[in-house]
Amino acid sequence: MTPVTAGSGRSLADLFVEAAKQAIEDAGVDRIDSVYVGNMMSGFLQQQAHLGALMATALGREGIPAYKVEGACASGGVAVNAAVKGLLSGLEEIVLVGAVEKMSGYTTPEVTAGLMMAEDRQKVASTGITFAGLNAMIAREYMQKYHVSHDSLAEFPVLCHENALDNPRAQFRKKITIQDVLQSPLVADPLRLLDCSGIGDGAAALVLAPGNLASKYSDSTVEIVGSAIATDTISLYQRPDITTFEASKTSSNRAYKMAGITAKDVDLLEVHDAFSVLGVMALEDLGFADKGYGTKPLQQGECARDGKLPTNSFGGLKARGHPVGASGVYQVAELALQLKNEADKCQVSGAEVGLAQSVGGIGSTVAINILCRTD
Amino acid sequence: MTPVTAGSGRSLADLFVEAAKQAIEDAGVDRIDSVYVGNMMSGFLQQQAHLGALMATALGREGIPAYKVEGACASGGVAVNAAVKGLLSGLEEIVLVGAVEKMSGYTTPEVTAGLMMAEDRQKVASTGITFAGLNAMIAREYMQKYHVSHDSLAEFPVLCHENALDNPRAQFRKKITIQDVLQSPLVADPLRLLDCSGIGDGAAALVLAPGNLASKYSDSTVEIVGSAIATDTISLYQRPDITTFEASKTSSNRAYKMAGITAKDVDLLEVHDAFSVLGVMALEDLGFADKGYGTKPLQQGECARDGKLPTNSFGGLKARGHPVGASGVYQVAELALQLKNEADKCQVSGAEVGLAQSVGGIGSTVAINILCRTD
Repeated sequence: MTPVTAGSGRSLADLFVEAAKQAIEDAGVDRIDSVYVGNMMSGFLQQQAHLGALMATALGREGIPAYKVEGACASGGVAVNAAVKGLLSGLEEIVLVGAVEKMSGYTTPEVTAGLMMAEDRQKVASTGITFAGLNAMIAREYMQKYHVSHDSLAEFPVLCHENALDNPRAQFRKKITIQDVLQSPLVADPLRLLDCSGIGDGAAALVLAPGNLASKYSDSTVEIVGSAIATDTISLYQRPDITTFEASKTSSNRAYKMAGITAKDVDLLEVHDAFSVLGVMALEDLGFADKGYGTKPLQQGECARDGKLPTNSFGGLKARGHPVGASGVYQVAELALQLKNEADKCQVSGAEVGLAQSVGGIGSTVAINILCRTD
Repeated sequence: MTPVTAGSGRSLADLFVEAAKQAIEDAGVDRIDSVYVGNMMSGFLQQQAHLGALMATALGREGIPAYKVEGACASGGVAVNAAVKGLLSGLEEIVLVGAVEKMSGYTTPEVTAGLMMAEDRQKVASTGITFAGLNAMIAREYMQKYHVSHDSLAEFPVLCHENALDNPRAQFRKKITIQDVLQSPLVADPLRLLDCSGIGDGAAALVLAPGNLASKYSDSTVEIVGSAIATDTISLYQRPDITTFEASKTSSNRAYKMAGITAKDVDLLEVHDAFSVLGVMALEDLGFADKGYGTKPLQQGECARDGKLPTNSFGGLKARGHPVGASGVYQVAELALQLKNEADKCQVSGAEVGLAQSVGGIGSTVAINILCRTD
């Protein structure tokens, strides 16, 4: 993983190659059979398509099959899922999956328009509503329907900022309080600045291989035991209930089934907290809290690194940073470091099974990847 | 397949749904397990990402896994390959693969800039050279190196226009002569207007399933016996020889191996003739002519519909039309119609094995899909 930063001026290829070379070196592999590249906005912000061939070339590995995979802000998680399918197809054995996003260096209206590409352009984005605006409607509805205060939702960014203090790659390494969140500038009522993930650049990469092959190259591996994606309507207005993401439920149930586990077996989480309320909803939709009670595990300390369900242990989207199409791969890489006991100061104790949830658009695509310790 | 047209004003979703519904109805399937969407330029031209969830919703099938796959102008062929991997993974049984591109309704500079997203933005597109300009360099070099006249290259668009006369979905249904090509307006020396594919909108879709399952739903099926993709350098200037596409050789060799055949077994072709010279080079790189002699099978009538190697029998990119990210799926759908004896007035006689070549960028990604008659 590269550090998540804003204003570095680095290119997409420069960022991707840094992460990919680290991953290849760490895995110790002597070949790559194919590469999957996750990214959301390069066509819009950089006027650059064809990231598969671009990254294969930048790595000096032109020739290999290369795929660009996109599922809006879930592109990273979707790319991991596509790579898992590639392995299961038997057509390739050692695959690189990486994701990159470059969001800094553009005006806020440009980035805001880019993010709205995740919604229906003709019917919704064209009205002028922003991505923060849509999430603000979710937050308002959630707070009213379940009688949850903004203070309670703010526990999520407070946790993430706390965790990011120990992550040298995090974009925002600053402790914040609930009062800080509530007093930060209003972005889209009721969302305030510290409820929202920021704008950043970054890339993350993984090397995947079948278990018997992986163990030949490395003493330190983790197993992907479940991987699934699901969609929901492209637009929020098409949903009967905007306080739950059906695609989170569908995709996590598919992944749990594939892994042969239930939510009870998960003891490490990375959830898609692009906005405070989404982190709380994730705890519910993935099976870790009853509906309307997603703030409970937070308030009871369960989500802290020393709790029974450490969540976003490197800072999550809010504080590690959210280079949108790349975040899903950051999440899986962070789970892998935890399960390999290589998380340094962010290390949690005794986790066996970790789950990463990556959300595209307003819950229109959700990717779930479940990892398990191998030793 | 929708007809390829310019100026229809139809949306991406409208086009995609027309093709997808036709494919689902034709296949007679009662469910779809996942959908793969190929497209190149929607982020740039339509400010629309997230085509996976968008199309799943437009089809009334939100919930299913949906992937957007991109490999520049080869996006359609790459999406078919990704869908084949999905099937082989065993995680899904009935998949929809469709591709769509909407290029009309924009200025020529806008579309030209969109196409150049296939090359390296920083190092090449930024110089101002166009996609036609890069292909013109290939044509010039090819003509000089192999002493081939423009007249000979012009045989390719003449063939395609002849074939398109019988295709009701073709964008350009007009017979042309070699003289017409040579006297058409200059686009980028030596390329003239009739050497170049046009700007059009269109969508095509297929339903794929394992053979034993497919035959339960339909009496009329074809088998995908080989599918592979390969990359080459993202930029033309990085190549030792610009008159051959290494990725065509690599990907076709992989696909031949997977199918257990050689070029000699292929008796039906769809090649990526975005520019005349590319069609001729394809015949060489895929193994149907010696290097420098790609015009020979054309001149000997082998590529005509009544020849021994019918090529671009529905009109190819030049005359059926080239909605860039969708063309790769059009090619496979056209091969399928031929092998099922459902090609109407475009029908060739006795073909058993067909190959489709889809090229992304300046040969930076090539997707090969090989189909075989099942009855």
